[in-house]
Amino acid sequence: METMTATTTTPKPARTPKPMNGVDTPVLLATINVVKAEPALARFVFRATNRWQQGTHSRTRIEAFDGAGATNAHQQEFAYDADHPPVLVGRDQGPTPVEFLLHALASCLTAGIANIAAARGVTLHEVESTLEGDIDLRGILGISDDVRNGYQEIRVRFRIRGDAPDDKLRAIVEQSRARSAVYDVLTGGVGISVTVDT
Amino acid sequence: METMTATTTTPKPARTPKPMNGVDTPVLLATINVVKAEPALARFVFRATNRWQQGTHSRTRIEAFDGAGATNAHQQEFAYDADHPPVLVGRDQGPTPVEFLLHALASCLTAGIANIAAARGVTLHEVESTLEGDIDLRGILGISDDVRNGYQEIRVRFRIRGDAPDDKLRAIVEQSRARSAVYDVLTGGVGISVTVDT
Repeated sequence: METMTATTTTPKPARTPKPMNGVDTPVLLATINVVKAEPALARFVFRATNRWQQGTHSRTRIEAFDGAGATNAHQQEFAYDADHPPVLVGRDQGPTPVEFLLHALASCLTAGIANIAAARGVTLHEVESTLEGDIDLRGILGISDDVRNGYQEIRVRFRIRGDAPDDKLRAIVEQSRARSAVYDVLTGGVGISVTVDT
Repeated sequence: METMTATTTTPKPARTPKPMNGVDTPVLLATINVVKAEPALARFVFRATNRWQQGTHSRTRIEAFDGAGATNAHQQEFAYDADHPPVLVGRDQGPTPVEFLLHALASCLTAGIANIAAARGVTLHEVESTLEGDIDLRGILGISDDVRNGYQEIRVRFRIRGDAPDDKLRAIVEQSRARSAVYDVLTGGVGISVTVDT
């Protein structure tokens, strides 16, 4: 009887974290512990520099960020164009700025899914998402003050396959949403200061 | 006397819009008038599809959007990688998702500046912006529930030069901010639904 009780109440042995899904899970968990011990390491400043090209076309360079107590250069220089499409009198030299919001959201949620799945010992086979954002351009065109400038709604639909039951896969997506930096900013908003040097 | 009065009160003749800054101003203004007359044309749906690659690396394709009463393909296929950097146990196959938020914000404000300057008859010589976003990663790492997941503040600093007085250049930046889709979403937030197919 005592043995049975012990058996039924003994917690599962702690799973030894191992790399999976391309995530170095032991290093990830060790990193979290290091930051727990020294919270100042968690303060990051991300940066970008944008230059106007012509018309609605501009280009952003993303070069280095501060974090973990140092300035970190990316391993390559990343540069991205954005533009308006012809139907909005642009030249389509890049996606629109609002399409990059969808990319930021999808990639943030997906990175979280991979990390969380690895931490939970779930091997992922496939993660795909489709995103849609509705916008009424009467806002930005200055036609109506009753229409907001930005998206009115964004819909994200994930298709996820892995070696876990459906409810466990759904819980991974949910945990990623709950801890997503981009989801947080897009749903909750953030203060933005704009200053001008002429 | 009457002549003098007439002279001092006569409004400036309406400026004939002309292309400038790479903006086809007459077409832009005509487009606004078309949308005024038929608001349904202003309803746009932007789309993106993201696929997980490995680890925190994923890739987003941006292909077509609905708007102006049609489905509009971009003139080329745009695809973007995002990843976490090594310090966050990623492989730096692209910028982080939160860095793409800075690109979206900069490019949206800058496109607006070019359009508004053209509409106001101002020739731009240079528009450059630097952006910084502060984030405390104790949020996304699940270390503290008191720390938000996303940016705590974003700072945008514009340097703008053109053939207008400083106050007119500043007013152009301010009007772009007031009509920016990305600024609106990032400061005001938007509803996001996340659904999962397993």
